[in-house]
Amino acid sequence: MDDNITLKQAFDKSAYPVGGHGRRNAEVLLEAFRGIDGETESDMYGSGAVIEGFQTEIAEYLGKPAAVFFPSGTMAQQIALRIWSDRRGSATVAYHPLCHLEIHEQNGLRELHRLEPILLADKSRTVLPRDVETLGADVACLLLELPQREIGGQLPDYAELEAMSALCRERGIKLHLDGARLFEILPYYGKTAAEVCALFDSVYVSFYKGIGGIAGAILAGPEDFAAESKIWKRRHGGDLISLYPYIIPAERYFRERVPKMERYYRDAVELAGLYNGCRGAKTRPQTPVSNMFHVHLDAPKEDAERIFAGIAERTGVGLTAYVNAAAEGGSQFEVSLGDRYAGVPADKLREAFRQLDEALGAQAAEPKAGQ
Amino acid sequence: MDDNITLKQAFDKSAYPVGGHGRRNAEVLLEAFRGIDGETESDMYGSGAVIEGFQTEIAEYLGKPAAVFFPSGTMAQQIALRIWSDRRGSATVAYHPLCHLEIHEQNGLRELHRLEPILLADKSRTVLPRDVETLGADVACLLLELPQREIGGQLPDYAELEAMSALCRERGIKLHLDGARLFEILPYYGKTAAEVCALFDSVYVSFYKGIGGIAGAILAGPEDFAAESKIWKRRHGGDLISLYPYIIPAERYFRERVPKMERYYRDAVELAGLYNGCRGAKTRPQTPVSNMFHVHLDAPKEDAERIFAGIAERTGVGLTAYVNAAAEGGSQFEVSLGDRYAGVPADKLREAFRQLDEALGAQAAEPKAGQ
Repeated sequence: MDDNITLKQAFDKSAYPVGGHGRRNAEVLLEAFRGIDGETESDMYGSGAVIEGFQTEIAEYLGKPAAVFFPSGTMAQQIALRIWSDRRGSATVAYHPLCHLEIHEQNGLRELHRLEPILLADKSRTVLPRDVETLGADVACLLLELPQREIGGQLPDYAELEAMSALCRERGIKLHLDGARLFEILPYYGKTAAEVCALFDSVYVSFYKGIGGIAGAILAGPEDFAAESKIWKRRHGGDLISLYPYIIPAERYFRERVPKMERYYRDAVELAGLYNGCRGAKTRPQTPVSNMFHVHLDAPKEDAERIFAGIAERTGVGLTAYVNAAAEGGSQFEVSLGDRYAGVPADKLREAFRQLDEALGAQAAEPKAGQ
Repeated sequence: MDDNITLKQAFDKSAYPVGGHGRRNAEVLLEAFRGIDGETESDMYGSGAVIEGFQTEIAEYLGKPAAVFFPSGTMAQQIALRIWSDRRGSATVAYHPLCHLEIHEQNGLRELHRLEPILLADKSRTVLPRDVETLGADVACLLLELPQREIGGQLPDYAELEAMSALCRERGIKLHLDGARLFEILPYYGKTAAEVCALFDSVYVSFYKGIGGIAGAILAGPEDFAAESKIWKRRHGGDLISLYPYIIPAERYFRERVPKMERYYRDAVELAGLYNGCRGAKTRPQTPVSNMFHVHLDAPKEDAERIFAGIAERTGVGLTAYVNAAAEGGSQFEVSLGDRYAGVPADKLREAFRQLDEALGAQAAEPKAGQ
């Protein structure tokens, strides 16, 4: 064993990486285009069979009148909020403080669209009906992210979701779904995508997260909303002459993996149980409600990195590629399950967790010098 | 011959289409990825060998310190103008009235960035030094498009270009190059890309026009400008997790076709000569300065469509896929030459133009009833 190997290097070399569908390499594209006829016509600036066919397929799946393919969710969601804002004549929108728009988009919503978000709830929990009750009539749109990724992928109860939807309708507040991981939560809710989306006025879904495509997103809603979103797509520079390099893989992997979401969810529940069985480790949520969860460790980042690198090298099981520092000297990382989990031999996984429990237990017994 | 066939249908069926490199179909991607190892790692949100390597290659080619790959020129150019505007503390920019930003972007520059363009020159000619002399100190940036596409691909003389660059520097006005067709004009100017770009503070080039890639653009300029453009790329929703489906074809076709730009240019000069030899036809510019020109016909759109469809059916030579109505009852279309022209047999082309001259001559002799 090489003590100098980084966790990332050990993970990349591991025979049995646990999370995701596979490496993000050119094979994802090559595989998706296998069997595609070279004569297949490109889409042209949003028109053509390849884009229109996929938009129709996803609109039907989501139960919305119209759907528009975008290069990114960042673009799609800013545009959704802008349209609802313009219709209401108010720059005020509302979302969770750990919303993608708030922490990952370089403030595009304010810098490009001059919208003013109200931050609802706090960083420890999801938005709940009592938060929605505080919203005034000046709020054009509430964005809900299901599940709330940055807190481990938590969900409100379905009854709470219905209550929030009803509250928004009463008040004339449009409700937008950040459904970056919508497919992944359907098994837990026991609902179809269309049933969940019926609670919302507009919906964004992603094709490179749970679906494992290359990039791209769909924004769905009423016909006039979709038509207006195409104008904004042009303004943002997202109305590319050809989006088929993203659409063809999105369609292929959508069809292949949506039926597997139930399995990814069950696998996540199982794997979270293994983490929660280790000393000094717990998951958030304790029982996952999708294919994802966060792992929180008492061990500091550097110790955890060394422990996971060692396990990967000795057992071949790559439990995580990184660890972040967290509050109170502990550490934390995210797990999202996909196709890979089914390929990890049960005995190897058991041995990896035996070693993890042992190492975390030993680490906890050490005096915490230098902290 | 089927009288009901549309020009587009006849063109699509023609054995010898004259313009472009080929059909915009999935083969463009499949061909570019032939020989690419599936293990090739994706870029990740603007990082990684595939994007950084190409950016370095193009920065060197353009003679600029840094280059950033964008999904589209629409996004890249709005951002360039916004950066220069923020630095100057002025929302005023200047460009030609037929600039891409003015007529093809749904007013994104105003709607997203609140910039206020001054329209220079008029719709019949390129921007000239005398126009630049009218600009005040409040102008943050002048955008010049070389060649000016919407007027047939016209260029100022190189000495005029140098004079405009000098005027901008004197006045502290940043000069930005819309180089959507920069590669295509280098043979006429007899300059390297770096020599032309040295006259400009920032430069955009496209990879799906003359280069024939799938989509994508590069924005090049100083290091700090490039770094700032990446922040705006994130805000626009263009900082995709994976841009390699555009980058790999861009690199492939850039290397393959940049050396052929001289030939495309010579071919355009030859083909324009054939059009100018027909009665009732003339090209703009009369002698092309790049691979492109516009054809103006005295014949009305419907007559011209019938004539070109007939020629395509009888000779197999697809001269154009469309004709637009133009001023004074005439018609007009654009020609851009690429790889296809070399595959058109000389005798077929001669026969096509013999028939075109005959048909346009006969059409001109008819009484213009019903106009």
